[in-house]
Amino acid sequence: MNIAVLGTGHVGGALGCRWAAVGHSVFFGARDPAGAEVRAVLARAGGGARAGSCREAIAACDTVLLAIPWDQTHAVLERAESLDGKLLIDCINPLTPDLQDLTLGYKTSAAEQIAAWFPTARVVKAFNTLSAATMENPRYGDLAAHVFICGDDPSAKETVHQLARELGFEPIECGPLRLARQLEPLAMLYVYLAVFQGWGGDCAFRMLKR
Amino acid sequence: MNIAVLGTGHVGGALGCRWAAVGHSVFFGARDPAGAEVRAVLARAGGGARAGSCREAIAACDTVLLAIPWDQTHAVLERAESLDGKLLIDCINPLTPDLQDLTLGYKTSAAEQIAAWFPTARVVKAFNTLSAATMENPRYGDLAAHVFICGDDPSAKETVHQLARELGFEPIECGPLRLARQLEPLAMLYVYLAVFQGWGGDCAFRMLKR
Repeated sequence: MNIAVLGTGHVGGALGCRWAAVGHSVFFGARDPAGAEVRAVLARAGGGARAGSCREAIAACDTVLLAIPWDQTHAVLERAESLDGKLLIDCINPLTPDLQDLTLGYKTSAAEQIAAWFPTARVVKAFNTLSAATMENPRYGDLAAHVFICGDDPSAKETVHQLARELGFEPIECGPLRLARQLEPLAMLYVYLAVFQGWGGDCAFRMLKR
Repeated sequence: MNIAVLGTGHVGGALGCRWAAVGHSVFFGARDPAGAEVRAVLARAGGGARAGSCREAIAACDTVLLAIPWDQTHAVLERAESLDGKLLIDCINPLTPDLQDLTLGYKTSAAEQIAAWFPTARVVKAFNTLSAATMENPRYGDLAAHVFICGDDPSAKETVHQLARELGFEPIECGPLRLARQLEPLAMLYVYLAVFQGWGGDCAFRMLKR
């Protein structure tokens, strides 16, 4: 699969390099594709990965991971040649700078906002409740972290389930895109526990089942 | 400890009977204390448990579990002789009748609303993300379900942590009462998965840690 990974920070770097490692063709999109951060990520990702502008990455791929700050998201996507039919995987949490609230409030969500801006794209919310450490390694002893996935396009969601399984996660189907209104608060709870209650990044939500 | 359990449905019945089983003095509060549901719960709870009106139960106890429907909560608490200093454990989820949204929205929470109505009480949010089946039995193989707990009174929260541990749960400290804005959406996600995605009641959230 050709996967554009927009953003080469902890999140884009972790998921992009791991998808490259399992054989996907990863095209990192960045503001400065020749910069040190991108070069380091390309070195980790190995020979199959490329980098360019976000516009170039989107044009080259049918699947696009959004791993950029929320306040850049609209501008970056607006510059794309076309988003028609593209699978946009949204793992963004639009947190306030103090990490204590959601900038969009709770009556919508980043995922729904992106879908409203770009109605010809197929938006799936996923990976937003995970730390970068868990993205690097989803195993917790015998158990794997759960990835909570919602969206309105069944085939797009199935692709994301598969991309999650390939990295060792267990996906949980969470229904339509409006469930992002629960998944973004879940990320806030995660951030609160990780940052303010001392759990750190080596923790992850799982649904126990018997 | 003297614990008033308001409500004798699945939630009040499960937690009340289990607290009675570990030695607490449980006073069930109900609209019809002589009715069949209350008699059945008292039979399960054993000799130490009593039942009466909610007003009587509150008056007799320093700790009060709210396991009644959200739309009755204000009226029931308003009829109390006094709530000064009482520990109110709020496990209520103010869901819409279709179970798809929160009646209070997301800019406040049931827990914060109760604290605003009755500022002399000590409100703690807890147990709201658990099914009745998990309340009956928190074990999932080698792991226990997590109880997410928030509130503004540290000693009240510590009591709830202890009450959770006594039943075999592992408590997670989630900070101030406003975190109920994350815990109520977490319950919505739980209900969505349990009811609409087929997970059923024998599942529970846990934070994995390594």
